[in-house]
Amino acid sequence: MNDSERSSLLPKADAAVAAAGEAAEASHDLTRKLARFILSARFQDLPDTVRHEGARTLLNWVGCAIGGSRHETVTKAMAALLPFFGPPQATLFGRSERVDVLHAALLNGISSHVLDFDDTHIDTAIHPAAPVAPAILALAEHRPVSGPDFMAALIVGIETEFRIGMAVTPAHYKTGWHITGTAGVFGSAAAAGRLLGLSEQQMCWALGLAAAQPVGLQEMFGSMTKSFHPGRAAQNGLTAALLAHKGYTASEHGLEAKHGWLNVLSTACDYAAFTGAGWEILNNSYKPFACGLVVHPVIDGCIQLRDKNGLTPDMIDRIEVAVHPRVMDVTAIKNPKTGLEGKFSVYHAAAVAVAEGAAGEREFSDAAVRAAVIAELRRRVLATIDPALGKAQARVTVLLKKGDRLSVFVEHALGSVQNPMSDRNLEDKFRGLSEDILSVDRMDRLIDRCWGADKLVDAGEIARSAASA
Amino acid sequence: MNDSERSSLLPKADAAVAAAGEAAEASHDLTRKLARFILSARFQDLPDTVRHEGARTLLNWVGCAIGGSRHETVTKAMAALLPFFGPPQATLFGRSERVDVLHAALLNGISSHVLDFDDTHIDTAIHPAAPVAPAILALAEHRPVSGPDFMAALIVGIETEFRIGMAVTPAHYKTGWHITGTAGVFGSAAAAGRLLGLSEQQMCWALGLAAAQPVGLQEMFGSMTKSFHPGRAAQNGLTAALLAHKGYTASEHGLEAKHGWLNVLSTACDYAAFTGAGWEILNNSYKPFACGLVVHPVIDGCIQLRDKNGLTPDMIDRIEVAVHPRVMDVTAIKNPKTGLEGKFSVYHAAAVAVAEGAAGEREFSDAAVRAAVIAELRRRVLATIDPALGKAQARVTVLLKKGDRLSVFVEHALGSVQNPMSDRNLEDKFRGLSEDILSVDRMDRLIDRCWGADKLVDAGEIARSAASA
Repeated sequence: MNDSERSSLLPKADAAVAAAGEAAEASHDLTRKLARFILSARFQDLPDTVRHEGARTLLNWVGCAIGGSRHETVTKAMAALLPFFGPPQATLFGRSERVDVLHAALLNGISSHVLDFDDTHIDTAIHPAAPVAPAILALAEHRPVSGPDFMAALIVGIETEFRIGMAVTPAHYKTGWHITGTAGVFGSAAAAGRLLGLSEQQMCWALGLAAAQPVGLQEMFGSMTKSFHPGRAAQNGLTAALLAHKGYTASEHGLEAKHGWLNVLSTACDYAAFTGAGWEILNNSYKPFACGLVVHPVIDGCIQLRDKNGLTPDMIDRIEVAVHPRVMDVTAIKNPKTGLEGKFSVYHAAAVAVAEGAAGEREFSDAAVRAAVIAELRRRVLATIDPALGKAQARVTVLLKKGDRLSVFVEHALGSVQNPMSDRNLEDKFRGLSEDILSVDRMDRLIDRCWGADKLVDAGEIARSAASA
Repeated sequence: MNDSERSSLLPKADAAVAAAGEAAEASHDLTRKLARFILSARFQDLPDTVRHEGARTLLNWVGCAIGGSRHETVTKAMAALLPFFGPPQATLFGRSERVDVLHAALLNGISSHVLDFDDTHIDTAIHPAAPVAPAILALAEHRPVSGPDFMAALIVGIETEFRIGMAVTPAHYKTGWHITGTAGVFGSAAAAGRLLGLSEQQMCWALGLAAAQPVGLQEMFGSMTKSFHPGRAAQNGLTAALLAHKGYTASEHGLEAKHGWLNVLSTACDYAAFTGAGWEILNNSYKPFACGLVVHPVIDGCIQLRDKNGLTPDMIDRIEVAVHPRVMDVTAIKNPKTGLEGKFSVYHAAAVAVAEGAAGEREFSDAAVRAAVIAELRRRVLATIDPALGKAQARVTVLLKKGDRLSVFVEHALGSVQNPMSDRNLEDKFRGLSEDILSVDRMDRLIDRCWGADKLVDAGEIARSAASA
């Protein structure tokens, strides 16, 4: 008899009492149990699939951090904080400056999220790498750590975010929190705490210090503060771990207590998420295209037709796309004027995907949006809503001037968990993001170091080789 | 006809619509209106009483920051963060080290709250100075500012905390937030933003960046993280202002939006608090005694009887204290073994107050708790509950060995808004907190600079003269 069957046999009041008892049991010493999980996982015990997904997550994050490194959001944050930087301990990805570890965590966190091109865990809406990777990459430059230890910390930090995120999904997000920042701070504390060698007691304190410093409101979406959220979460979690390491105390029940994080920041909690057996990082996903997920199926279909048929803009009479209704809510801009507007134009997305066979940052630049050949093709795109389509689906039809009609149905867009980017796709994405910033030699070396991170004697090499010349 | 009368004449549904309409009107552009208030207040327009309360708040805060500066909470935080300090721009109060402005805001914020001896706004439970003063004192050392501008920023920062705090009291605190950290970050952003000369637009962004970084859960009470809350709030608000100053954007509706701070962090909001006419700083209060407010009436009565009658321990047969029930919930430790336990012992509080005529940090030290003469007198204290007494009241009776019976009823304990500490009391408290740390000359000079802060050409002198030799 499973739990729900057992409950249904009880009178209602007894069922409520039983449920309350189970919740109390499940929440008992939750922070300590989580601390034990964080400290006990060993790299050598991780399944190969999990290790490999960790490397994919790392490579994808590094590319995004480099790609965002010249964005004005990053340069403004640097200008504001420059007078207060500590010693040049850590690399700013894609830049030549070095800053102290805490500011590196913040600034690299911002740059890795500013393009909205980083990884996504669909079930929780967490972008998992941005709050964790920059904290431990910076720390690894200051305090040497082996590759296996580094990769275990990255993976366990991400799992920590997911467990907390899944426990409070959907109530917490619905309240208005930006979960990447609010759950992210725990991931950073967990990962950094592992690298600092915290005891179980200290890890409880680090989680408590993390609980006291959530970051992120959805109201900030559309402003520079959105990418500040994971950056600050990385910095806060790292600070929490550093403080706990020196014996700075916090409550040992920061998550489960009546006035702890779970109750204060969420109206509901599924404690079972904390004992989840699987490795949730296997459900991490990576964006192949530098725009909102909603328009990815259209882009995927356009690139498929182009590649299969050797399409060029001059061959094309019309592009017809049938889409889920949500697409026209979000990306209906007919004549975008800037790269940013281009990200909210299904017309531009389809045209540039057919013309260029790609949809990276370059294809959503101001120049791409204003290019005559793209603008001309954009006018030939016809978008219609098909309520029968799912959110991850699209139908793309290209009518050629010579009369042919080419069509493709996209069931799961590239980049979804069901149709993931290949390792090669991820490398191509990485190159697209870093080609104007790193030399080809440096790109090659950095890609190798990400794939082989678990073989490194000193994981600090990853960040050091991500500086621009 | 007032608002409630008007509502009562409407059918219920209409009344709900009217109330929703009023709330929408009251919340419209709230962040911008608050930014205007923050930027428009001028020192020369502030009433004398408000200016003087600002000086009292400053003097009290400086004493607390110096008094807490050697606490292990501060030294542990310093040890953890030392490797990451930036240039030596700002003073650590009561210490000889100088650190960067952002870390000074954090560490001075911690030291000023760690003794639980700083100021309190009773209605909201906000400790207002701790998140604001350290941010702008550090900034004033880095970026010269006049005394009047500094004092206006301090007062307006504190009013900002109060307006937000009053709007969400009691719902927000009841949820489990430590309001000193969550409202405090706005006070710091407001005060620092004024000193940086933010435009109205930039001040809206600074408030948005503050909204995204609340600090503090009540679950952390009793751990070092409690005092981390105002320190981090000071640092976060200052960071918000610095970022906004360089054009780092945030939502302009960070407070009032559906997914803004007020709705996400509170289940209820009284928008009228934002247009409050008065200067709420006039209701700030200062603790004369270094322990929880609950036991202050007893201490006040004991000191009154001692001073009036020249009592010494050897004269006393018994001390009888009648107290509000809450006193015995919180301070019932009969035989405290440490200074910290002494703070939770009404017996120790009464005995040491009669024996020493004071109840500062020294009277709650381990040494004081263990002193034979105090321990002996403690055994002669009898505490009884009188449900008729108010929380701020107590009756103290001393029976002398020679048979006399001396009694006093405390209506409002010293330090309450109704019976405030005098300026002289505040100076004595300051000296008690700093006497082991600063020379008498330095204490005198620092006291003068606090009282005369609004006459200083360079407000940075306050912090510079608060360093230990």
